[in-house]
Amino acid sequence: MPRKIAIIGLGLMGGSLGLALKRAKPRPRVIGISRSKSKVRNAVRLGIIAEGTTSLASGVRSADLVVIATPVHTVAALVAVIDRLAKPGTVVTDVGSTKSEILKTIHGKKLKNVLFVGSHPMAGSHQTGFAAARANLYKDACVFVIRESAADKRALANVAKLWRSVGGRVETVTARAHDQIAAAISQLPHLVAISLVNSVSSRSLRFAGNGFQDTTRVAQGDPHLWVDIIRTNRRNLVREINKFSRKLVHLAKILKNDQKGKLLAELARAKRIRSRIQKPEK
Amino acid sequence: MPRKIAIIGLGLMGGSLGLALKRAKPRPRVIGISRSKSKVRNAVRLGIIAEGTTSLASGVRSADLVVIATPVHTVAALVAVIDRLAKPGTVVTDVGSTKSEILKTIHGKKLKNVLFVGSHPMAGSHQTGFAAARANLYKDACVFVIRESAADKRALANVAKLWRSVGGRVETVTARAHDQIAAAISQLPHLVAISLVNSVSSRSLRFAGNGFQDTTRVAQGDPHLWVDIIRTNRRNLVREINKFSRKLVHLAKILKNDQKGKLLAELARAKRIRSRIQKPEK
Repeated sequence: MPRKIAIIGLGLMGGSLGLALKRAKPRPRVIGISRSKSKVRNAVRLGIIAEGTTSLASGVRSADLVVIATPVHTVAALVAVIDRLAKPGTVVTDVGSTKSEILKTIHGKKLKNVLFVGSHPMAGSHQTGFAAARANLYKDACVFVIRESAADKRALANVAKLWRSVGGRVETVTARAHDQIAAAISQLPHLVAISLVNSVSSRSLRFAGNGFQDTTRVAQGDPHLWVDIIRTNRRNLVREINKFSRKLVHLAKILKNDQKGKLLAELARAKRIRSRIQKPEK
Repeated sequence: MPRKIAIIGLGLMGGSLGLALKRAKPRPRVIGISRSKSKVRNAVRLGIIAEGTTSLASGVRSADLVVIATPVHTVAALVAVIDRLAKPGTVVTDVGSTKSEILKTIHGKKLKNVLFVGSHPMAGSHQTGFAAARANLYKDACVFVIRESAADKRALANVAKLWRSVGGRVETVTARAHDQIAAAISQLPHLVAISLVNSVSSRSLRFAGNGFQDTTRVAQGDPHLWVDIIRTNRRNLVREINKFSRKLVHLAKILKNDQKGKLLAELARAKRIRSRIQKPEK
């Protein structure tokens, strides 16, 4: 387990990681890095991080492991900057929701000091900012670690250890497989929720109950974060939208023809599959 | 407020109404009716109802108000049966999720004793059965009461009082308006969730996190209950599916063309609208 960990970005993901690492054994030294002085001050005051800085250079200089917890589109550029500041052999990972585009950009750069290993914890919320941070965010969450991104085995092992130390279930996959999976279970539901909210009339929306609220909860996510996640995975996402649309059109056809047996079979199948993936609420 | 209320059906809706009426002021006498002896026994034992019976005749004979809390397709036939058993002027309501088809059938019958007023509380859960019943299910929930279904003003007022006494916010609407609204905010999200679950590959589903679980929670609803709800409102529902599909196709086109500004506008619009309808969690 790395002894000194730098976390760049003190939002929901970075803040929760800071909180969770306070309980990790052995407990690493954690330094939080943010461009905002007040964020650093507040995160230290709230006990999310033990120490903090607004200087990337002083933050990453002595770190064994750097976690980039900033928006997807900033990751590749940050890796290049860290490479000029960190000591040789520094392991760097991230929490970005799409992986192929980040890796393509990073592979184009010749890194001298940094050993980069991509990660994506399937944890989060429509809430953002470290005010929403919680120590159990990563507990029992699936964390993807990207196999071919690992410069060496030690780097991969260290990143896997980091996530396991905060309760994550690590899955090593290729960037390609990761992006297909993320399109299906994260970005497709997001666009479906967006379309639901934007297609229903305001007269009807006044009466929305629990069901509508559950189905569209993710639509409250930060548009600026999501626009980059979605854009960097758009080929997979368009394919998933098409698959989903075919299913919905099929259901509409069953409805028009009033085929009770077929409709019941679709509902029963969905209930069976959905019940299987139900996880206990935190 | 009616003094003696009979509830037919001791599932989530009927059971929760029984529990809630124990706190209503003035507290009415409540009798629960179910075909299942063990359900009646258990509901009395758990304090959901004060008294119960498996006999429709003895249950409704002396009631001032009868609430039918059984599946949609059973409502119209039950109203006709109750009309032969109840005293003249007995007010009868229901909790069915679609209204036009029930009313059409009931209007075809010549009722002698029953004054029927359709209701639809926008409360519920994917859970079913009185084991899931809770006293606050109707608290702050929107309850539709169907205006033109009311045989007279006193009947409409009594049904509205019933729902208000358990915390519901009563909205009087036409059956036509009700069914359009219910298609948009309840049945469309249901079919969307079904399509999501049934279109995503099992490899991807293994990794589903909170977002996917929220978006598809309603797909765990009872298929037999939902198949009738959906079938009895299929014209409105097909129209809503088409509206939704056009929105999703539009998003897919924006994605293909990588139009960042337009994508951001859609996400921001959805966040704004969705945040407005957010209700405090119970």
